[in-house]
Amino acid sequence: MNPVLVFRFVGILVLFLGLSMLFPLGVSLIYKDGSAMSLVWSMLIAVGAGLLIYASTYKGDNKALKHRDGVAIVTFGWIAAGLVGAVPFILSGSIHDFTNAYFESISGFTTTGATVLSNIEGVPKGILMWRSITQWFGGMGIIVLSIAILPFLGVGGMQLYKAEIPSPVVDKLKPRISDTAKTLWKVYLLITSLEVILLLLGGMSLFDSINHAFCTMPTGGFSPKNASIAHYNSAYLDGVVIVFMLLAGINFSLHYRLITGDPVVFGKDPECRIFLAMVCALIIVVTLNIHGAVYDSFLKAFRYAAFQVSSIITTTGFVTADYEKWPALSRNLLVLCMFLGGMAGSTGGGLKTMRVILLVKHAFKEVFRIIHPHAVTSVKLGGKPVSSEILSSIWGFFILYLALFVAATLAMSALGLDLISSFASVAACIFNVGPGLGLVGPVHNYTGIPPIGKWVLIFCMLLGRLEIYTVIVLLMPEYWRK
Amino acid sequence: MNPVLVFRFVGILVLFLGLSMLFPLGVSLIYKDGSAMSLVWSMLIAVGAGLLIYASTYKGDNKALKHRDGVAIVTFGWIAAGLVGAVPFILSGSIHDFTNAYFESISGFTTTGATVLSNIEGVPKGILMWRSITQWFGGMGIIVLSIAILPFLGVGGMQLYKAEIPSPVVDKLKPRISDTAKTLWKVYLLITSLEVILLLLGGMSLFDSINHAFCTMPTGGFSPKNASIAHYNSAYLDGVVIVFMLLAGINFSLHYRLITGDPVVFGKDPECRIFLAMVCALIIVVTLNIHGAVYDSFLKAFRYAAFQVSSIITTTGFVTADYEKWPALSRNLLVLCMFLGGMAGSTGGGLKTMRVILLVKHAFKEVFRIIHPHAVTSVKLGGKPVSSEILSSIWGFFILYLALFVAATLAMSALGLDLISSFASVAACIFNVGPGLGLVGPVHNYTGIPPIGKWVLIFCMLLGRLEIYTVIVLLMPEYWRK
Repeated sequence: MNPVLVFRFVGILVLFLGLSMLFPLGVSLIYKDGSAMSLVWSMLIAVGAGLLIYASTYKGDNKALKHRDGVAIVTFGWIAAGLVGAVPFILSGSIHDFTNAYFESISGFTTTGATVLSNIEGVPKGILMWRSITQWFGGMGIIVLSIAILPFLGVGGMQLYKAEIPSPVVDKLKPRISDTAKTLWKVYLLITSLEVILLLLGGMSLFDSINHAFCTMPTGGFSPKNASIAHYNSAYLDGVVIVFMLLAGINFSLHYRLITGDPVVFGKDPECRIFLAMVCALIIVVTLNIHGAVYDSFLKAFRYAAFQVSSIITTTGFVTADYEKWPALSRNLLVLCMFLGGMAGSTGGGLKTMRVILLVKHAFKEVFRIIHPHAVTSVKLGGKPVSSEILSSIWGFFILYLALFVAATLAMSALGLDLISSFASVAACIFNVGPGLGLVGPVHNYTGIPPIGKWVLIFCMLLGRLEIYTVIVLLMPEYWRK
Repeated sequence: MNPVLVFRFVGILVLFLGLSMLFPLGVSLIYKDGSAMSLVWSMLIAVGAGLLIYASTYKGDNKALKHRDGVAIVTFGWIAAGLVGAVPFILSGSIHDFTNAYFESISGFTTTGATVLSNIEGVPKGILMWRSITQWFGGMGIIVLSIAILPFLGVGGMQLYKAEIPSPVVDKLKPRISDTAKTLWKVYLLITSLEVILLLLGGMSLFDSINHAFCTMPTGGFSPKNASIAHYNSAYLDGVVIVFMLLAGINFSLHYRLITGDPVVFGKDPECRIFLAMVCALIIVVTLNIHGAVYDSFLKAFRYAAFQVSSIITTTGFVTADYEKWPALSRNLLVLCMFLGGMAGSTGGGLKTMRVILLVKHAFKEVFRIIHPHAVTSVKLGGKPVSSEILSSIWGFFILYLALFVAATLAMSALGLDLISSFASVAACIFNVGPGLGLVGPVHNYTGIPPIGKWVLIFCMLLGRLEIYTVIVLLMPEYWRK
C-alpha cells in the first residue's frame, strides 16, 4: 500500500464533506432551528482536518494507483466519512455519545438506514438534512464503487461488468473512473430531482421531499418522520416511493442507457428481467398472504405488500406497515428479500440479483452433470458463458458473506439478544436494509442494542456495503507485507 | 434408467426388510407385548411384496448398472424402505394414519429421529425395537452410500474419496461396492456391540441398551424412553453415549484403519482433526455460556454442553437437557451444529465437515487472489490440491441445499408455523437431526405439525439423507429422456 497516496485521497474526501455542510447549514439558518453554530463548527473541524491530512501527504510525486491502494482508499474513505458525519450529531446535542453518533453516521454513509434516534422529529432540521445527505453521498460512493472500481479489483463477480458480458458499462460509458463517475452522478441527480418534484406534487413539504428523495435513491431509508413514509398515509406518495425505490435497485448504467435512448433496456437485460420478475412474484405472494389475515381490503393488502417488498428487497428500509404483525410466511419472505438485495450496479445491498442467478444456475449445472457426467457445460448469463474464474469469485464472496453473517449473529446473541433479534439485526445491517425483526423491527430502532453490539453492527454495515472483500483484505497480514 | 434392474434391487431390499422383522418379532414374543401378530402380518406383506417385485422384474439378462440406475436404486430404495417400515406401526395400532406412520418410518430410515409418538413408552416393545432397527439399517445404507456409491456418482464433492486425496477408502478398503460394504458393516456391527456392552455395564436394561446402540451408531436418535437419554440421569451413561455419538460422526473408513492397526489415524486425517477441534471449541463455549446462567455447577454445565453439542453436531438428536431454556448464544451454536454436521463417510447428516472446510478455504483463496491477482493458487486439503471440478460440485451442492432449505422453510411458514419453528423444523429434518427448536424443540415432538407439513418434512429428510442430488436428479426431465 502507498499510505501517502491513500491518505491524500482520504484528506480530499474529508475536505469535501466539510464543505458540503454548507447545505444543511443553509437549511438550519432558514428554519432557525438552533443547530447553525454546531454545523459551522463541524464544518471548520472537517475542513481543517481535511486540509491537514492533504497537506501532510502532499509530496508532489504522483505515483500511479495500484489495486491495493484502491482497496485501502475505499475502506479508509468510508471509515473517515463516518467520523466526519458523526461530528454534527454530537455538537448539536442530537446524539450524546460517540458510539451512537458514529453508528448513525455509518448507517448513513453505508445507506443502511438503521437509526438510534427515538424521536427523529425532535432533531433540528439542519441536522436531519445532514443525516439525509450522508445517505445521498453514500449512494454516490456506491455507484462508483460498484461500477467503476470493484470490477477492476476482481471482487465477488463484479468483474462481469468489465468484459465478459456485453456490459453497458464498458460499451457505452467512458472507461475512466472519473468520467464514469461524472456520467452516473448526473443520472443519480436527475432521478433524485424527479422524485423531489413528484413528492411535492403529492403534497409533501419541500424539506420532507428533499430528505426522502435523498434517502430513496441510495436505498438508504432514513426519514425525517418518526413513522417513516407511514406518516403521510397517502397511496399516491407510497406509489411514488415504490417506483423510485425500485429504480434505485436497478443497475444505474441501465438508467444511463434508458435516458440516452434505449427505451426497452430493462427488458433486454437478463439480470433486470429476473429482478423485476422476482419483485412481482414476491408482491403477489405477500399480498395473498396478508389479505384477509391482516387487511380486509385487497387493494390495501397489495399497497402495503408492494411497498414493503420493494423497500426490503432494494434494501431501502422505508416503512408503511408494521410487518411484524404479518403472518410468518410474509415475514420469512421479507427476510429472504434482505438476502436477495438489488441488482449489481445499483445502490441496493444484499447479495445482488446477478450473484443469486449465477449461484442457482451453477447448482443446476451440477445436477445436469450428474445426469451427463461427460458433457461439457458452462453457466451462461444472457446467452454468454460466464468464466469459471468469475464464478469462483462469486462463490468465495458468498461463503465469506455467510461466515461473517454467522459470526456476527453469534456475537449479537452472546451480547444477550434473542434468537430472532440477533439474526435480524445482523441481516438488516450486513445487507444494509435498516429495519429488521424483533428488537430492531419496523416500529423499533437500534437504541436498545448494547454498545459493543453497535460496534459489531457498524462493522457489519461496512462489510456489507463495501462488498466484504474490500474490508477483509485489509485485515490480512498478506496485504501489509512487502 | 433401466427400470427392470432398478426395481429388482428394490424388490430384494423389501424382501430383506421383511425377513429382518423376525428380530422384533422375537422381542415381541419374549415380552408378550401383544404386537406379535401385527409383526407377522407385516413380515408376510413385505416378503410377499418383495418376492412379487423381484419375480416380475426377473428376466435373466444381467446388464451392467449405470450411474443413472444407481441414483434411482438409492432413492426408490429409501422410499420403499419407508413404506415397509410404516406397516408395523399401522398394524400394531401404535400409529393410526399413514402420514404419521410413514413420517416415523422415513425418520427412522433416514436416521433423522424426528418422532410423532407422544407416549413412546406406551408402544409395544417389539414395535419399538423395529423402530430402532429402521435407524440401524438406515445407517448401514448411508455408510455404503457415502463411501461406496456417491463418490462414483460425483455427488457434492464425495468424489474426493475416490482418488484425489490419499483416501483410506481407495487405499485400504477393497474397491468393489459389495466388498467395501461388508468390511464397513463389520466395523459398524463391532462398534454397536461395544456400545451395548458399555451401556449394560452402566445399569441400562438389555432392551434399552440394544435400542440406544441401534440408534447411536446411525446418528439416529430414536429412544425407547419419552425423555430420551435424560431418563437415566447418569453421568456414566451420558459419557458412553457422547463417545459413541462422536465415533458415529467420524468417517467409518477411519475406524476400519484404526481397528486394523493405525492407532493415530484420527490425528492424521485433516478432516477428523478439524471435526474434533470444532466439537471441543463448541463444547467449551456452550459450557461457559450455560454455566451460571442455567447450571450452578461447572461440571454439570460441561456434561450437558458436551452431550448436546455432540448429539446435534453428529445429527444424532438424543436429548439430556431442554436446551430451549439455554441462552440465545448456545441455541444459535446448536443451530450452527445442525448445519455443520458430521464427517463425510460417517452416518452423520448436515453439510459435512469436509465440505465446510473446503468452502471456507476457497473463500480465503479468493481473498488472497484480490491481494495477488496474478498468483496461481489452489485449495488444498491435507497438503494436496483439490480439483476445481470437485470444488464446483461442492458449491453446487451447497447452493442447492440452501435453496431447498429456504423453499421448505417458506412452505412450513405458509402452513402456519411461526418463524423459529418453520426454520428449525426444516433444519432438524433436512440435516437429519431430529429435535429442533420451538414447536419441534427437545421436549416436544412432530405431532403438532399439519399433515402437509409432515410431507414437506418427509421430503426434506430424504433430500438431506440422500445428499440432495440423488433425489433432485430424478425430478429433472433430462433424467428421463432417451
